[in-house]
Amino acid sequence: MNRSEIDSALHRLDADFGVFLRKTPLWKLSGAALGLDCAEIWLKLEHLQVGGSFKARGMLNRLRAQPIPASGVIVASGGNAGIATAAAARALGVPCEVFVPVVSPEAKQARLRALGARVVVTGAAYAEALQACLARQQDTGALLTHAYDQPEVVAGAGTLAQEIEQQGGLPDSVLVSVGGGGLVAGIAAWFEQRVRVVALEPELAPTLYRAREAGQPVDVAVSGVAADSLGAGRIGGIAWEVTQRHVKDALLLSDEAIRAAQRWLWKEMKLAVEPAAALPLAALQTGRYRPRADEKVCLIVCGANLDPATLA
Amino acid sequence: MNRSEIDSALHRLDADFGVFLRKTPLWKLSGAALGLDCAEIWLKLEHLQVGGSFKARGMLNRLRAQPIPASGVIVASGGNAGIATAAAARALGVPCEVFVPVVSPEAKQARLRALGARVVVTGAAYAEALQACLARQQDTGALLTHAYDQPEVVAGAGTLAQEIEQQGGLPDSVLVSVGGGGLVAGIAAWFEQRVRVVALEPELAPTLYRAREAGQPVDVAVSGVAADSLGAGRIGGIAWEVTQRHVKDALLLSDEAIRAAQRWLWKEMKLAVEPAAALPLAALQTGRYRPRADEKVCLIVCGANLDPATLA
Repeated sequence: MNRSEIDSALHRLDADFGVFLRKTPLWKLSGAALGLDCAEIWLKLEHLQVGGSFKARGMLNRLRAQPIPASGVIVASGGNAGIATAAAARALGVPCEVFVPVVSPEAKQARLRALGARVVVTGAAYAEALQACLARQQDTGALLTHAYDQPEVVAGAGTLAQEIEQQGGLPDSVLVSVGGGGLVAGIAAWFEQRVRVVALEPELAPTLYRAREAGQPVDVAVSGVAADSLGAGRIGGIAWEVTQRHVKDALLLSDEAIRAAQRWLWKEMKLAVEPAAALPLAALQTGRYRPRADEKVCLIVCGANLDPATLA
Repeated sequence: MNRSEIDSALHRLDADFGVFLRKTPLWKLSGAALGLDCAEIWLKLEHLQVGGSFKARGMLNRLRAQPIPASGVIVASGGNAGIATAAAARALGVPCEVFVPVVSPEAKQARLRALGARVVVTGAAYAEALQACLARQQDTGALLTHAYDQPEVVAGAGTLAQEIEQQGGLPDSVLVSVGGGGLVAGIAAWFEQRVRVVALEPELAPTLYRAREAGQPVDVAVSGVAADSLGAGRIGGIAWEVTQRHVKDALLLSDEAIRAAQRWLWKEMKLAVEPAAALPLAALQTGRYRPRADEKVCLIVCGANLDPATLA
């Protein structure tokens, strides 16, 4: 994964921005405005992306990158990746099947159906839904999208980093949440070592952190407030390779710190975001990441798929 | 009210931006991205302002414009104006008294107290709380802030229009909600006739609309989903004068259209806003305002003081 693949994604998606994708706001604030001891905080408001998360960039790039069979597109995900796949399929006018386990909330299934997807509810947990999805894909030949470990998906996520540079130049550091690692990989592949990329994970879903301890990707038990979107269970192969090259810092945050930052973003900033999007602010508020006084820190606000009642 | 008063406000508040005030994002989208038949939609995300509404600009300008007595600042408002006054007083380190009627929700009173204000709960309705506030002001000599009908408050609101022009140039039209009219007056005083300013009101709170029918400001019964922030009861004198000079269009919208637009902004755009902030989109979605195909329409997203559970 490198910048040229992201350039290809930008070229491929050019006509989609403004219709099926959005260039999201980059909001520059002083550190003082957020009560933080650094020069500037840049908030990349990517939770305002189509479908409520950055995932739309990667999924549409995957669908645009190759011919789509008559059987359409298929994915196993009840979360942001499923929503983004269904939205991309609707944009292109192709069929979409989404496999989710029986524990998947009815509200999410309804959201997928509203996007025109056929929802298949099967299996007690995600792994079983994925097995059923893969078996079905063998039968139908539909194009499979993966939540984070396909080159087009990572390159699509990388367009977010190019957009930041285009809108505001280079920050000193970028703080980004990691689940399967598609977003951090895309961002680090774009910035290379021109910007310090800091990878953040919940203590209860430490896929990159444990991989570094083990020297390779390993299966990790995941739970906690952000497991819904960061609970990949294992860092992706692409993310592992890119972060080994370009990312020095991998930090863990407690669920308490994540929830506190999420609530603060609503109360003080009126940004309604999911827990996964609050890790960058939590890293600053807890002092887990300490910027220099003159540092320009960019926080990726990555998603807003939440029940707003949980903010109250 | 004219541009030079807004220039003075900009000068006075210059050092506050970045600390006690925010320059809020101007988000340019294609009309197609929102399913609308016009060239561009600009969303001015002023609900992300300090205190969750544009009111912070005007209140801080009022407090900065004159010496503040030792008795501090006083206001009658349980809504956005009260919050903005309390926040401005806290920023300047001066005492603040806020008068609210007994019907005022406890959550709002708690918010005011959290900002350091002394909250006085008195009177069955707003008019009685205001009477008590005015009597108290006579005793203490505190500086009174008015929600919309003071020159510094209107000029502060006008800084929002200058910020739009600085960030994005001139749109063709600006759609803005009207309660007492402080915001529309500030915007129209800045743009003069360089931009078409369209004033929007709920059918159930038509202060400007009824004033135009009567040929002068008149008392109006107010109710409905946006009465909390647009229920002024009478268009302000400054707003009446400025809109007579600069605003041709005053349109009414149903509560159903307002609520539908508010829900759409959450569901499709992940913007959590109060009903008053949804009138501009409602005017487009209902066809009550029909832009030209090549028009650049700026929507003022004016506030986010809501219980997020109401979005679900």
